[in-house]
Amino acid sequence: MPVVKEFEKLFQCSDIDITALAALVSGGLYYLSLHKDRSPFCGIDINTPEGYERIERAIEFLVKKIYEEGDIQDEKKAIARRLLEAGVDEDVIKRSVWG
Amino acid sequence: MPVVKEFEKLFQCSDIDITALAALVSGGLYYLSLHKDRSPFCGIDINTPEGYERIERAIEFLVKKIYEEGDIQDEKKAIARRLLEAGVDEDVIKRSVWG
Repeated sequence: MPVVKEFEKLFQCSDIDITALAALVSGGLYYLSLHKDRSPFCGIDINTPEGYERIERAIEFLVKKIYEEGDIQDEKKAIARRLLEAGVDEDVIKRSVWG
Repeated sequence: MPVVKEFEKLFQCSDIDITALAALVSGGLYYLSLHKDRSPFCGIDINTPEGYERIERAIEFLVKKIYEEGDIQDEKKAIARRLLEAGVDEDVIKRSVWG
């Protein structure tokens, strides 16, 4: 999937496995599409506008959370960089910033 | 899915649509399982221990993020409750706490 490659570039400096997340979420979408002529799945019928919107909002939620985690990790890296520049021990930084 | 009903109880006081999220993630798992005898999906082969672990970690990540969001919402509700008790206007609370 070329689009996944683009996202991989965005998240390559984080420890977020965007490829695995994309596989899960897009697999979920495929499954719900393949399932749509059968009974609702988990009580959600994506043939209805309401069901479709719920899945849309769930994807938006997950994307927001993944980007938020990316921001948190960027911030942690900036903290670690400043601590390193200030001469703080690398082990102390590792334990303190990443717990 | 009875297990989804249990999660719905846990998240019923939040605006997290745990049912839609469960539909997406479990649909993703079903899709990856159904797909496993074909080529890898998104470059991930769940027949290998490495591919399997990546999907496992992606699920752990998503579950962690969903619970974190639940905690954030609980905290916001606690703030709103304290503001209401202190006599702050409801509209001001709504705008200030939920943006």
